[in-house]
Amino acid sequence: MKAMLVCPDQSLEWREVGEPVLHDGEVLIDIKCAACNRADILQRAGKYPSPVGCPEWMGLEVAGVVAETRSEKYKVGDRVCALLGGGGYAERVAVNAGMALPIPAGLSFEAAAAIPETFATAYLNLVSEAKIKAGDTVLIMAGASGLGTAAIQVAKHFGARVITTVGSDDKIEPLKKLGADIVVNRKTGDLGAIMDANPVDIALDCAAGSSFGENFLRMNHGGRWIIISTLAGEVSEINLRGVMKKGLRLIGSTLRSREPEEKYCILDSMRESLWGGFESGELAPVIYKVLPICEAERAHDIMNGDHVGKVVLMV
Amino acid sequence: MKAMLVCPDQSLEWREVGEPVLHDGEVLIDIKCAACNRADILQRAGKYPSPVGCPEWMGLEVAGVVAETRSEKYKVGDRVCALLGGGGYAERVAVNAGMALPIPAGLSFEAAAAIPETFATAYLNLVSEAKIKAGDTVLIMAGASGLGTAAIQVAKHFGARVITTVGSDDKIEPLKKLGADIVVNRKTGDLGAIMDANPVDIALDCAAGSSFGENFLRMNHGGRWIIISTLAGEVSEINLRGVMKKGLRLIGSTLRSREPEEKYCILDSMRESLWGGFESGELAPVIYKVLPICEAERAHDIMNGDHVGKVVLMV
Repeated sequence: MKAMLVCPDQSLEWREVGEPVLHDGEVLIDIKCAACNRADILQRAGKYPSPVGCPEWMGLEVAGVVAETRSEKYKVGDRVCALLGGGGYAERVAVNAGMALPIPAGLSFEAAAAIPETFATAYLNLVSEAKIKAGDTVLIMAGASGLGTAAIQVAKHFGARVITTVGSDDKIEPLKKLGADIVVNRKTGDLGAIMDANPVDIALDCAAGSSFGENFLRMNHGGRWIIISTLAGEVSEINLRGVMKKGLRLIGSTLRSREPEEKYCILDSMRESLWGGFESGELAPVIYKVLPICEAERAHDIMNGDHVGKVVLMV
Repeated sequence: MKAMLVCPDQSLEWREVGEPVLHDGEVLIDIKCAACNRADILQRAGKYPSPVGCPEWMGLEVAGVVAETRSEKYKVGDRVCALLGGGGYAERVAVNAGMALPIPAGLSFEAAAAIPETFATAYLNLVSEAKIKAGDTVLIMAGASGLGTAAIQVAKHFGARVITTVGSDDKIEPLKKLGADIVVNRKTGDLGAIMDANPVDIALDCAAGSSFGENFLRMNHGGRWIIISTLAGEVSEINLRGVMKKGLRLIGSTLRSREPEEKYCILDSMRESLWGGFESGELAPVIYKVLPICEAERAHDIMNGDHVGKVVLMV
């Protein structure tokens, strides 16, 4: 089969590789679509390798058709999407059946490919980690990213009020249509003042950076701030007395590094909680662009620019 | 009745005050003993006033006898200990029955007075917040403090391995006898090196200070660091990428600021979990000194010096 390999100069090449070997409990998926994530770009740059036991090529989430099975959970021909430790930029992948979910009725492969990593990250952090509840105010950094567009929908699904940030004004309207209550241009707006006027209970933060410490203390009593990436910087000062007095929590969280058993639980719980919303149309992955897999380099360029939602590769 | 009031010059005076008024659901306790806490010293300095609705005078935990009751939970003559928002340095106090616990069989008033705030703080943070389990390695800062001596026992009760810090070598042996596995003199030892060799899962930290950020990243993957006071300093730098990659949690926590209903739950849960240990002698409050209440000033001086365990006032 073919897979998208990273050359020493970081260009990408669609090359012949060995067929996946199927183990007990696994399904072999004929990949129809793979969604792109920022982690793919980091992996391509050599900064975030696939975990041991996963294919070395990129790709954390796919949708396709079961081609062969050594699990009772799925039969050949089932339409599934799956969370991967790596290996989605390829024609086929073998994965434990616990990492696969049936595609919600009515969803295309393109849309379904954007669920397993993206919605599971939003769900894991907002629901399992931060215990979101109706009436909470939730801050979502970078609302126009694939994850941001998923997190806004998940937060609204649970009855929360959403504040989100964008890098340009033309992303404000699309995010308001998605349900965001307040959208702040991080370059021209004053997030601190907005947080003072609307204290948040939960923050889902892919930015971090030096302003973290100040904004953290602006949370409501009992607030939970979740760091899922550090795109704006790694280091900040923190006032621990403020953290104590307000009973705040800082939570570092990645989905990829968790144990398989924990991932199966997250996916099961997400299916119970969100599949009805996908099937009714209340929830829908926001797809910005679908490109053939041979244009993966262009897909990554698009993710570094002005997009709202997910970029998906068609195999 | 009499209570210990703070004069403008911060000296203390045992003076006549109004009798407590008993409301529905409350018990009136004839106080036999009140245990001292560092919060009392802060309150005396004007830095940590009693919450609204509590007597203005100091005292977070007492033991005594029920003198009058408007709750079915206790009858007149019952020996109880109680968690207070304030008001323990007095002859009597009225408190919701949910804040009172029966004194474990065989315990004196002196010992029982040192349970409600001290053991509840250890229990709340190690069990409810940090989800301690057998085999965890737990770091307890200031192990010779009243809270430290309680936390060491609670951690050992749950099968954890305990590292603790002291300010002088003569406290090492008493804490080892109490069950601590590793005791570090924070002035002469190298806590960082010890944490590198023995990565911890849970830290119960009353010190905080500028070294926090570095030590936080020394924890095991999934580690939980709980700040309950900031005696060594309030501000530290923190590397958020490290927090994310290791899936760490920073938790700010105070018992006093929690809602009454939450306190009832913590106390109930602690009784179920620890009362057997107190009654068998496996757990025992460490009492350093018992003084008459009129020597409260001396009691506070002792707490600022070389003590191991609790200082208790006899009313």
